[in-house]
Amino acid sequence: MNINEIIKAKRDCKELTEQEINFFVEEYSKGNIPDYQASSLLMAIYLNGMSEAEILNLTLAMARSGEIVDLSEIPGIKVDKHSTGGIGDKVTMVVMPLVASLGVPVAKMSGRGLGYTQGTVDKLDSIPGFRTNLEMDEFIRNVKRIGIALMGQSENIAVADKKLYALRDVTGTVESIPLIASSIMSKKLAAGADKILLEVTCGSGAFMENEIRARKLAQTMVSIGKMAGKETIAVITNMNQPLGRFCGNALETKEAIDILSGKGEKDVVNVCGLLGAYMLKLAGKGENIVTNIKLIQNQIDNREGLAKFKELISRQWGESRVVDDPDILVKAKYKIPVNSVVDGFVSEIEAKNIGQAVVNLGGGRLKKDDTVDYDVGIEVVKKIGDEVKSGEPIMYIYSNDETKGLMQVEYLRNSYKFSKTQVENYKEILDIID
Amino acid sequence: MNINEIIKAKRDCKELTEQEINFFVEEYSKGNIPDYQASSLLMAIYLNGMSEAEILNLTLAMARSGEIVDLSEIPGIKVDKHSTGGIGDKVTMVVMPLVASLGVPVAKMSGRGLGYTQGTVDKLDSIPGFRTNLEMDEFIRNVKRIGIALMGQSENIAVADKKLYALRDVTGTVESIPLIASSIMSKKLAAGADKILLEVTCGSGAFMENEIRARKLAQTMVSIGKMAGKETIAVITNMNQPLGRFCGNALETKEAIDILSGKGEKDVVNVCGLLGAYMLKLAGKGENIVTNIKLIQNQIDNREGLAKFKELISRQWGESRVVDDPDILVKAKYKIPVNSVVDGFVSEIEAKNIGQAVVNLGGGRLKKDDTVDYDVGIEVVKKIGDEVKSGEPIMYIYSNDETKGLMQVEYLRNSYKFSKTQVENYKEILDIID
Repeated sequence: MNINEIIKAKRDCKELTEQEINFFVEEYSKGNIPDYQASSLLMAIYLNGMSEAEILNLTLAMARSGEIVDLSEIPGIKVDKHSTGGIGDKVTMVVMPLVASLGVPVAKMSGRGLGYTQGTVDKLDSIPGFRTNLEMDEFIRNVKRIGIALMGQSENIAVADKKLYALRDVTGTVESIPLIASSIMSKKLAAGADKILLEVTCGSGAFMENEIRARKLAQTMVSIGKMAGKETIAVITNMNQPLGRFCGNALETKEAIDILSGKGEKDVVNVCGLLGAYMLKLAGKGENIVTNIKLIQNQIDNREGLAKFKELISRQWGESRVVDDPDILVKAKYKIPVNSVVDGFVSEIEAKNIGQAVVNLGGGRLKKDDTVDYDVGIEVVKKIGDEVKSGEPIMYIYSNDETKGLMQVEYLRNSYKFSKTQVENYKEILDIID
Repeated sequence: MNINEIIKAKRDCKELTEQEINFFVEEYSKGNIPDYQASSLLMAIYLNGMSEAEILNLTLAMARSGEIVDLSEIPGIKVDKHSTGGIGDKVTMVVMPLVASLGVPVAKMSGRGLGYTQGTVDKLDSIPGFRTNLEMDEFIRNVKRIGIALMGQSENIAVADKKLYALRDVTGTVESIPLIASSIMSKKLAAGADKILLEVTCGSGAFMENEIRARKLAQTMVSIGKMAGKETIAVITNMNQPLGRFCGNALETKEAIDILSGKGEKDVVNVCGLLGAYMLKLAGKGENIVTNIKLIQNQIDNREGLAKFKELISRQWGESRVVDDPDILVKAKYKIPVNSVVDGFVSEIEAKNIGQAVVNLGGGRLKKDDTVDYDVGIEVVKKIGDEVKSGEPIMYIYSNDETKGLMQVEYLRNSYKFSKTQVENYKEILDIID
């Protein structure tokens, strides 16, 4: 087999065979295919697309390129949950302890954030003492003992995907649905869960801004999961404004605790309820989605989800008193209001700018090795549909550097648009693909 | 400026600016842009194409990336002639001395062959003693003295093109008209002539098999030449069978001498006449193409072209007695007939196979540094339209290795197709683009 012929086949819109895809992934992983041939193939894939069979074979080959986690020691149906990332999206942190408190085993490996969204691992790292760098045997032992564990994703998972992702990042080939879908699903398949719930975010605060493309991505990933023999459901969520009230690592952890204490904002509670309900469904619990949503709400009302979260924190060496007093997590030196200069109703929020502001404040990574200031972030006071009077705060900036904080004020104010009349109802959930 | 953004722009079908193209070519030449980014851009260009302005800017940037030859010391209008290469195409070797004998200065830099076609430099190298590795000042001095000189193309011409061509060769991005056209024209513009005549070959014995693509390539190169301020004409020639009688380096040189001695076959004489006539036209000689063809024929009939070729050979240290006795050049140890096994008329010849057979015999290069056996080749006895009886030779194989030679017999025989009735007239010239 010859990589030049494989490139030409894809260039000429021919379907690559399983053998050709395996050859590419295996030889590229080993360093036998140089980057310049891989990037040429990636651009041909970007522009000419891939069939379902090709995407499945690429996913499986990348999954096989690293360690395959074995969760078989843990009894019960293991359900993984993945979000494609969104501004203020702390759903994973909330849903995990809620379903664990209902007896669904949660063995969650999670990535760090890159760009303007933060990862669950970063958010949990904001809890003093909390350790996400577990060894695999400790991780599995914890799930068996308390029903929940969370760790940073192993470097040994889907190593071909890591190498290819780094190449895509510098060769204009990131935004390809076959490549995104196979990248995500290769890691999910390697992570060893029995079933997969995908939160595909869509809108100005998500990687996928366009709903048609988000839907296509969700369908592609669900189809890969099913073809690989793992039941998969995708929920498409609306990220045209931040989800919930806070954006930034420690602030989102505080908000997760608020939600688990029954003090969450309606939009994020709705999304957590639905995603939790689908996790239960995949785990074979409950009767239907409507009753499952009530089961989840009940675990909030009776604080069992909160108790499970506290148990998780203790188990992983974190200071569990943050659960009793989440305001401990609000540590930024400056809280700077962003006041409206007009009267009206919020009609649009450029959510990406809020994520960008968090990065500007030091709360995100531009490169993999950047250090993160967990304290900084944005509190979103006014959301789409809310009435605002001139002079009222629409946001607060949390910063450890006053100048940096003040520099975001105008930028953030300009991220809002207002209308004379109230806009139609904003929907948090756009679709379910199963 | 950022190469990743340039890749994305081309990927998204945006037109690249002159600045972006210059940035790419300059930084890639310097090694500041890695191959993996260049190959991704090349694939995007391959699949999304380029506008006329983009192709011109790419050509000019590549021409500027190396030495620009200064022929201004040589009086008169300098006309360059380039062939995209074809099986048995010895036209350059014939036309150059013919027009030089009419006072048109010929300062010709030529490439070596690669793949199944041979270059003019290789063909001349088959003359004992002939030197093509001249220094630039010697080259110019010779043109001033005897009106003609031929040298191998300098390594310093269009260096970005050389680097990009090597990359295209291994990344499935060779067969792109914008990339082929800019590659050829960058070298022509850098070679310093005032006007350019292109022989764009088309058919089973040429790089461009498809006439529509050959026409597009010709139009693109003529348009680049004109936009760069150099009058350019392209002649599209038919390579669905070998041109003339011989294929192989020394054998083609022998045939060139035969043609210049008035003993050429009709097809190749016609092509040489027309291309010579267009060179005269570009050089401002003669009244029109019809009278120019007669002028060229006259230089064959009076042997002045042959005398000029002899002068060129002497001047460049070659043994000029080959001109008086071209059979000196027929040195292969074995001459093996390929006999027909049927009666009929030749209807089709897979010309590429004849080129491949020459390579198989050791007469071509697969890699740049391969050594070439100048003696080997094929004599084409029967051509399209000719009647053949079973048992008659259709070709002769010239080989220095009997086994290698015999191994080509069946392969070559199968490259012919026959019909019961004679096929329509075969045209050597398909079109003129000016």
